[in-house]
Amino acid sequence: MTWEIKNRLQEIKQKLETYMRRFLEGEESALYSAMRYAVLSEGKRYRPLLLICTGERFGASHEVLLPFACAIEFIHNYSLIHDDLPSMDNDDWRRGQPSCHRAFGEDVALLAGDSLLTLAFEVMSEAPMPPELVSRKLEAMAEISRLSGPKGMIAGQFMDIKSSPAQLSEDQMIELMEKKTGALIVASVKVGAILGGASPEALLIMEDFGRRLGLAFQIRDDILDSRQPIKSKLFRPNYVHLVGPEKASLKLQSLVFDAIDLLQKANLLTAEIKYLSFKLLELN
Amino acid sequence: MTWEIKNRLQEIKQKLETYMRRFLEGEESALYSAMRYAVLSEGKRYRPLLLICTGERFGASHEVLLPFACAIEFIHNYSLIHDDLPSMDNDDWRRGQPSCHRAFGEDVALLAGDSLLTLAFEVMSEAPMPPELVSRKLEAMAEISRLSGPKGMIAGQFMDIKSSPAQLSEDQMIELMEKKTGALIVASVKVGAILGGASPEALLIMEDFGRRLGLAFQIRDDILDSRQPIKSKLFRPNYVHLVGPEKASLKLQSLVFDAIDLLQKANLLTAEIKYLSFKLLELN
Repeated sequence: MTWEIKNRLQEIKQKLETYMRRFLEGEESALYSAMRYAVLSEGKRYRPLLLICTGERFGASHEVLLPFACAIEFIHNYSLIHDDLPSMDNDDWRRGQPSCHRAFGEDVALLAGDSLLTLAFEVMSEAPMPPELVSRKLEAMAEISRLSGPKGMIAGQFMDIKSSPAQLSEDQMIELMEKKTGALIVASVKVGAILGGASPEALLIMEDFGRRLGLAFQIRDDILDSRQPIKSKLFRPNYVHLVGPEKASLKLQSLVFDAIDLLQKANLLTAEIKYLSFKLLELN
Repeated sequence: MTWEIKNRLQEIKQKLETYMRRFLEGEESALYSAMRYAVLSEGKRYRPLLLICTGERFGASHEVLLPFACAIEFIHNYSLIHDDLPSMDNDDWRRGQPSCHRAFGEDVALLAGDSLLTLAFEVMSEAPMPPELVSRKLEAMAEISRLSGPKGMIAGQFMDIKSSPAQLSEDQMIELMEKKTGALIVASVKVGAILGGASPEALLIMEDFGRRLGLAFQIRDDILDSRQPIKSKLFRPNYVHLVGPEKASLKLQSLVFDAIDLLQKANLLTAEIKYLSFKLLELN
């Protein structure tokens, strides 16, 4: 079973890569090279896969889902480029290669990030959609902009750079993680459901699922980060440093199991969504 | 007559300020303070006024136009914040006050810019619109994203930082100005026309008008810049340095007169649009 699901997800990933390329190729400037460098390097594509698998559960076609999956991945990548900049995390490396500003300069990296964010909304605005479903498209765009904006993802980035880890309570740390990382995962799940025409009740359940999954995603990241020999980002809030490795690991597990349980009970779970959720328990 | 038009534009500007405030107020974080600082400082609001006056010509209501006028102004301000950053123009001053990163730090300024760009699309996605006009709304959003993206405004910003003034031809300089500044002015004019339901022919004329006005806008800026005693940005391309002050001034005049002429002949000119166009001839 598992290899079948892996193959299906691999196929979807291939479709997504092809789809994303069409917006990034054909221009030779360093600006476009920087965008390609950032987006087309090896990435897990977790958010777009989650969006597409959720959309499939509610009966949306790949044609309808792909532009939004592409937009979510562009937004995710813009946020990484800007996060890595010297005035932010000052990270020299990303996905095993020099970060975008190390490869192209700070100015080009800044504009490449701005470009990907703008392009995300271009792709969505131009997404083909049957006229009777246009309201879903606008709802999806509104959701993505809200969740990636200054009350969503950017609020989390802001908390991340402005909080002193020693003074954060666990509640504040969870709010930070829910915004910085969770918001875009919630967006992926909600937008898949919206595009598939989920009922208001199902949408609430999916949102709840996304919130747990998003938190789990960041806790897993923090666990992996805390195991790095060079703790370069010790000055940034990390859940493991706050509660210790055992509690972090238990929290991760309970979030993933609760998330799956929620969908199972609502009869909304698919093999693909289950697989993507369990993925977060792999710590190597 | 002129004072009546000035009063009308002043009233529209007031409406716009009130409208923009509702998206920026009520949050106390430094992130929101930085956004307010950048947007709500004294600005000419040239682009949103142009958008609204064009929309009025084609019969669109202020209710329909305001969200898009607000979005254009947010996008304009995000581009200024990012342009001023040390890795870009490294400008310490903007509109007579310290630039956003000088007042709030580079990290907060970066995120405030990202926030305004994202918020622009949130405001447009959520804009109220009669169901039969939803396609206009999507067309307007697509237009704004294309013209402010990596083939529009950002391409111009990229050319601006990467061109060596000594090696630019006049054609390249004009392309730079058309993208860096012109694209958002074209967007303002086109979006006003689209929201008012302009015919394809009228839309083409408005686009042509916008292109001339946008170029005039940047040439005027370059003339004013070249008159500054401290030429801090001599390393950036400037039309006056390329062709000399006389030719630049003649070019500005002919662009403005041609632009007005174009609309006059097509019976599309209004007193407000004429006033805003002639404004560009004021050089003090």
